[in-house]
Amino acid sequence: MNIPVQKELFERICILQESYTENNIVSVQQFSFEALTHLMNLISCIHVLTENNAMPPVLANKILAAIFYEPSTRTSASFISAMYKLGGSVLPFIAGMESSSVRKGETVVDTLKTIAQLSDLLVLRHPEKGIHTTLVANIFSPLINAGDGYGEHPTQALLDLYTILREKQSLENKTVTIVGDLLYGRTVHSLIRLLHHFENVHIQLVSPRDLALPREYYSGEKETESLEEVIGESDVLYVTRMQRERFKNPESYDQYKSLYLINKDTLHHAKNNLIIMHPLPRVNEIDPLVDKDTRAVYFKQVKNGLYTRMALMCLLLFDRNSHFYDFF
Amino acid sequence: MNIPVQKELFERICILQESYTENNIVSVQQFSFEALTHLMNLISCIHVLTENNAMPPVLANKILAAIFYEPSTRTSASFISAMYKLGGSVLPFIAGMESSSVRKGETVVDTLKTIAQLSDLLVLRHPEKGIHTTLVANIFSPLINAGDGYGEHPTQALLDLYTILREKQSLENKTVTIVGDLLYGRTVHSLIRLLHHFENVHIQLVSPRDLALPREYYSGEKETESLEEVIGESDVLYVTRMQRERFKNPESYDQYKSLYLINKDTLHHAKNNLIIMHPLPRVNEIDPLVDKDTRAVYFKQVKNGLYTRMALMCLLLFDRNSHFYDFF
Amino acid sequence: MNIPVQKELFERICILQESYTENNIVSVQQFSFEALTHLMNLISCIHVLTENNAMPPVLANKILAAIFYEPSTRTSASFISAMYKLGGSVLPFIAGMESSSVRKGETVVDTLKTIAQLSDLLVLRHPEKGIHTTLVANIFSPLINAGDGYGEHPTQALLDLYTILREKQSLENKTVTIVGDLLYGRTVHSLIRLLHHFENVHIQLVSPRDLALPREYYSGEKETESLEEVIGESDVLYVTRMQRERFKNPESYDQYKSLYLINKDTLHHAKNNLIIMHPLPRVNEIDPLVDKDTRAVYFKQVKNGLYTRMALMCLLLFDRNSHFYDFF
Repeated sequence: MNIPVQKELFERICILQESYTENNIVSVQQFSFEALTHLMNLISCIHVLTENNAMPPVLANKILAAIFYEPSTRTSASFISAMYKLGGSVLPFIAGMESSSVRKGETVVDTLKTIAQLSDLLVLRHPEKGIHTTLVANIFSPLINAGDGYGEHPTQALLDLYTILREKQSLENKTVTIVGDLLYGRTVHSLIRLLHHFENVHIQLVSPRDLALPREYYSGEKETESLEEVIGESDVLYVTRMQRERFKNPESYDQYKSLYLINKDTLHHAKNNLIIMHPLPRVNEIDPLVDKDTRAVYFKQVKNGLYTRMALMCLLLFDRNSHFYDFF
Repeated sequence: MNIPVQKELFERICILQESYTENNIVSVQQFSFEALTHLMNLISCIHVLTENNAMPPVLANKILAAIFYEPSTRTSASFISAMYKLGGSVLPFIAGMESSSVRKGETVVDTLKTIAQLSDLLVLRHPEKGIHTTLVANIFSPLINAGDGYGEHPTQALLDLYTILREKQSLENKTVTIVGDLLYGRTVHSLIRLLHHFENVHIQLVSPRDLALPREYYSGEKETESLEEVIGESDVLYVTRMQRERFKNPESYDQYKSLYLINKDTLHHAKNNLIIMHPLPRVNEIDPLVDKDTRAVYFKQVKNGLYTRMALMCLLLFDRNSHFYDFF
Repeated sequence: MNIPVQKELFERICILQESYTENNIVSVQQFSFEALTHLMNLISCIHVLTENNAMPPVLANKILAAIFYEPSTRTSASFISAMYKLGGSVLPFIAGMESSSVRKGETVVDTLKTIAQLSDLLVLRHPEKGIHTTLVANIFSPLINAGDGYGEHPTQALLDLYTILREKQSLENKTVTIVGDLLYGRTVHSLIRLLHHFENVHIQLVSPRDLALPREYYSGEKETESLEEVIGESDVLYVTRMQRERFKNPESYDQYKSLYLINKDTLHHAKNNLIIMHPLPRVNEIDPLVDKDTRAVYFKQVKNGLYTRMALMCLLLFDRNSHFYDFF
């Protein structure tokens, strides 16, 4: 192991811990611009170390409780892998896990308080918006929000920001086009809030009028129903899934679905250094033939999500003075 | 790592292994008073080491097979976390796991014999009372009973005993009041058997007549239907869940449920240094407002369960001479 | 740790990696006789090290994604344990795991491409014959076939070969009798292909005519419906499960089931050094009383499966120059 690199990792974690002193990640709004900057630096450092097989097992005796009241293959797997890559272990409670306790009539707070005794970090997805805020007041364990209904999904927004910064180096004078369901897509709500931290970023919003961005997240961005109109100026194209059941009549779904399909034709007038993002899973929004286009970064996003979650777990759990390191 | 402490851990495990020579934990009756004392000392040592992040990964290459034919979020999670905190791994076979093999017509013995080849320790919950005794005769792997129907649940009783001893220092001249369903509550049956090892312990049994302690566990303790009558003298109040379906008529359930509800009023005449225990999950037996009362120790019980199961796994699996330690 | 032994392990892995350069194991036909020999040597080395608690955690920072679209307690547990015994971690996606992504309309290729970003090795069981070949062309991660419908199950055949070689030392002039469902039993198809690598092996095939070996695997072996006729000359008796639903009429199932039942009587004229194998789970093919006969090796097969899968994972993932080893 190259000692300076490991030393650098420890230092970056400590700097971040100084600028972010809470023991939970419930909303992206908890991050100051300074904390965000330190977080991005830490993710970058973990990215390099992990790709070179040189990431030390810094959370080797820690246990993550991954609690998913709604199933999510992708998000749960990402958190679980992140803990493994840090040397820790995972107690998985995936969809239906609650059957046993719920059948016995236990409350969610009691279930989580119990699991908190058996683990070092709770990662919770739950359909009830705002539930994490309630829990933080009752349970004093470290906690990460992995999605609360139509509320937030902060780790997705943070990995999206990391992906943009890594691919484009800076957001200065960049144009980010977000297309699809902007009404219900919680990942874009949080992402837009994060982008507002940066100056001179141009955001373009493309959606059917019925699925426009809620006004609470809106601050004067360009809005249009036509992707064709704005794709040419875009540096980042962020595509979201459009769900059929959200449309009042099926015809308008079919109409917009094909209007926003990303394929060779759509990309014809796009910049050569555009990046195409998608939170996945995709259904029909992006033609699989686009996968081989070097501008497609959506599978890279998955990997960046792993590094982002590793960084967040280090932020909440790393203790430089732990006796545990004496064993290694 | 403070070497003397680790040395002390190893010594305590070895002393316990000398006084408990079986390779399974099926019933609390397997423990002599001497073995029980060494076990309590070991749990206490593991408790301190783990809370100080100084527990060495003594079972780092061992695999636990956690086999739950009946689901139990709490108990399975406790065993799994215990193995993780010892550095080991877990093969989870939780409720419904048997679908595959059972569908193919395999017997339970064959399934477990197979899993035994792939793991170092079996932890089994199964609805059939006494099944563990049958298995021990056929499978020679280390095995822990995690509950067999209305039979035993020895690890719960051992963690309860540890909790009492830790909180009250000694059982000498202490009064332990057990309230609720004493007929079907297997955890209290085993706990009562353990308490009989100690001299000068006063046990008080509080239950509806229909749910009185079976005579095979009874040895002259005070029995009453009124909690109010005995709470004032209690040093330990052990509350169990009362299950509606166990009552002949719903009215009597409703009557007793409110009679034994633990809340501020119930505790008005209780001692200041009382401890309130519950195996969890609770339904309506204890008002959540009691949680903040310093006398409530039921969430501490969960943590003590972790340390108790760590100790039992060390007892069955630790090998001081293992070559594996040469890697660390 | 005995350094020469660990050095020997590393050397055996490297020699195997030189003779088997693909990054996936889809079919036994990918193995040359030379690669097969090096693999058998490596399994043998891992067998000794593991039984002596001296196997180093060579894949300590690696993650296996165990993806079972069809449940299989035994096979999935074997792969998972193998990774644990190598020090690695496991993301389990067992039957029903696909519900979340599939519900959202994602393709299998997209799901696996995503999981590949979060893990170091894919182990996949899927009902569609040949699916692994398609996936290898799209996903560049290491991959092991854990069964594809009526296609192959290469790791089972390799562990069967290892078991025979370990028990009989050599295949030279040995008679291997395979009995049961030879039509649908994919494990025997692959095993027969592997046996064809060796000279002077005599294979005898025993099955009802309706369940005879498909001609594509056949190369002139003796075929009969009578086990009695050939058991006496056998050195290896490989018994497979006969599934009732495969028979045109129930009477013929009942007839053959009892005809091929292995019990004390069947074994009366068998050699003293015969070995009796079965891929498990068994239903009625072998009387449980035979388990105590020293010729029964089917539970040993399970353990050999663990060592075989450990060897295959080392083959695909071990990197002698990894920085990670600097931590240990």
